[in-house]
Amino acid sequence: MKATTIHAPFDVRLSDVPDPVIEKPTDAVVKIVAGCICGSDLWSYRGENKITPGSRIGHEYVGIVQEVGSEVRTVKPGDFVVTPFVASDGTCPNCKAGLQSVCQNIVGIGSKGADGGQGEYAKVPWADGTLVATPEVPDDALVPSLLTLSDVMGTGWHAARSARVKAGDTVVVVGDGAVGLCGVLAAARMGAERVVALSRHESRQKLAREFGATHIIAERGDEAKAAVLELTDGVGADAVLECVGTDQSFKTAFDVARPGATVGFVGVPHGVEVPIRTMFSRNVGLAGGVAPARQYLPELMADVLSGAINPGLVFDAELPLKAVAEGYQAMHERRSIKVLLRP
Amino acid sequence: MKATTIHAPFDVRLSDVPDPVIEKPTDAVVKIVAGCICGSDLWSYRGENKITPGSRIGHEYVGIVQEVGSEVRTVKPGDFVVTPFVASDGTCPNCKAGLQSVCQNIVGIGSKGADGGQGEYAKVPWADGTLVATPEVPDDALVPSLLTLSDVMGTGWHAARSARVKAGDTVVVVGDGAVGLCGVLAAARMGAERVVALSRHESRQKLAREFGATHIIAERGDEAKAAVLELTDGVGADAVLECVGTDQSFKTAFDVARPGATVGFVGVPHGVEVPIRTMFSRNVGLAGGVAPARQYLPELMADVLSGAINPGLVFDAELPLKAVAEGYQAMHERRSIKVLLRP
Repeated sequence: MKATTIHAPFDVRLSDVPDPVIEKPTDAVVKIVAGCICGSDLWSYRGENKITPGSRIGHEYVGIVQEVGSEVRTVKPGDFVVTPFVASDGTCPNCKAGLQSVCQNIVGIGSKGADGGQGEYAKVPWADGTLVATPEVPDDALVPSLLTLSDVMGTGWHAARSARVKAGDTVVVVGDGAVGLCGVLAAARMGAERVVALSRHESRQKLAREFGATHIIAERGDEAKAAVLELTDGVGADAVLECVGTDQSFKTAFDVARPGATVGFVGVPHGVEVPIRTMFSRNVGLAGGVAPARQYLPELMADVLSGAINPGLVFDAELPLKAVAEGYQAMHERRSIKVLLRP
Repeated sequence: MKATTIHAPFDVRLSDVPDPVIEKPTDAVVKIVAGCICGSDLWSYRGENKITPGSRIGHEYVGIVQEVGSEVRTVKPGDFVVTPFVASDGTCPNCKAGLQSVCQNIVGIGSKGADGGQGEYAKVPWADGTLVATPEVPDDALVPSLLTLSDVMGTGWHAARSARVKAGDTVVVVGDGAVGLCGVLAAARMGAERVVALSRHESRQKLAREFGATHIIAERGDEAKAAVLELTDGVGADAVLECVGTDQSFKTAFDVARPGATVGFVGVPHGVEVPIRTMFSRNVGLAGGVAPARQYLPELMADVLSGAINPGLVFDAELPLKAVAEGYQAMHERRSIKVLLRP
């Protein structure tokens, strides 16, 4: 079969790789209907992460189950499934607590032991603990939104949950990538009264508004802080979603949080120094991390199927799998928010 | 009147100072029944904080209201009151949200504008927003416990609340000072099934057990982590209370927290580098800060008056106010957990 491999910075290819097979009784093999490129794939693409030449890449996909191991009970061939970006056994104490992203037997999708999502087929370990099937094979128009549940929508949701967004809140979202935009959607869905998106890109501002942002702040740093304080009578936001992961974005997140608020963070921290004295003096909390996309899947899937949310709008480009390299380039150059790939 | 002043490291004195008077209509003057020495007073005592020679010290006391300003409505002369360690206006958005420790018009007790607690009398600003009166003048035996509500018990409670302790939890408390011990009591009162105190001082271990600790771990660092993991089948604690404030104690707190747990911190951070990548990968949150002792006062006062809790046991020494210098020395040398002072 064909699958995407990375060989060096800016060198991703569609390569011939072995067809996946069931190896363990808890495995499943899925025919990929749609995959996509994640902002975090770009770290490898740009050479910011170490690259093992020839390794697979891509961890988001949806597809149709082809075959399951003898112990798999919750999905069967023919099912349309969403695969979260990590495979989890579903039975360890962390999984039982809803923290499948810290499963004691975790396998990252696209790592050794679980094929990536930018290919034709994928073997999934821990099928019962990982895959969630739709009640029936969905209309193709729902595929983009279902695909976001494999990562970005679940991650934006986790930011909002971690920040303890509640009805009536004023919520600030730092970051206008696909995750930040999904964070806007999550906050709005949770009943936030005001959702403030920090964004200075017109196309992203537009999508943020479609997702429920009531205010857009194009400024950064101290000016963004001043704008939020003006909006909140000098008090700050009830909840803040940190969807970037840089020291500057963390600083902004804490700057705009009101005393007693929680910063929900899902951006992988890069060089972040947590302002612990500010947290102490202002009683601002910090919570989040790698999203347990699996935990949120049933709830978010129901919302997608009912039409309550349409996170698939984050895809502003669709390419055939063979054009995967072009997709990486478009996201790298920020010409696209997020690229969907069809095998 | 007499009040404690600090002049240089290891030099505290009982000095003659002006009698307090009502200056604003929102002030009250309180005759101090009992005050005490806080662990944080020792930073100044040891010269770790900058000392303004001759400045007042001490921020915990209870007493009888002598006089109130014309706008004071909730307390009257003759009332027995607890004064939290900061005065708060009670009306700003932060106070209304229960974060009186981040009041927009905060005045620290023992700072300019609010007499300290190690003296004979004290002027209190924002009397309505700050003081909480008992229904009647309490029996003298209850004074120590009521006194803890001005700081240490409220702070231990804040650690537990921030860590989101709930019934049935396994809770680890890092720190066996008065605040840590009150954290043990708070966790037990909130229904924790197992309360694990990290302590290697016999007298503090004993008090921790009296306060509800079910397990004592005398080890530190990696050995403490191993002991907690053994106790929790390798998963970690449901909630962790950080009551020290050093980099090492924070590290231990995060090491023993299970994925999804929150570290509630109330120890003033000194040189702490928050392990943000660990927080991210394990989804461990951090919340807390300067305790809103005022928020918790009504609830904790009811618990003290009913006998449900007896936090006054943290006082293992009582001295007349004139022996205040001896009290500082005893706490500095860790001969005493906490010293109560009677004017």
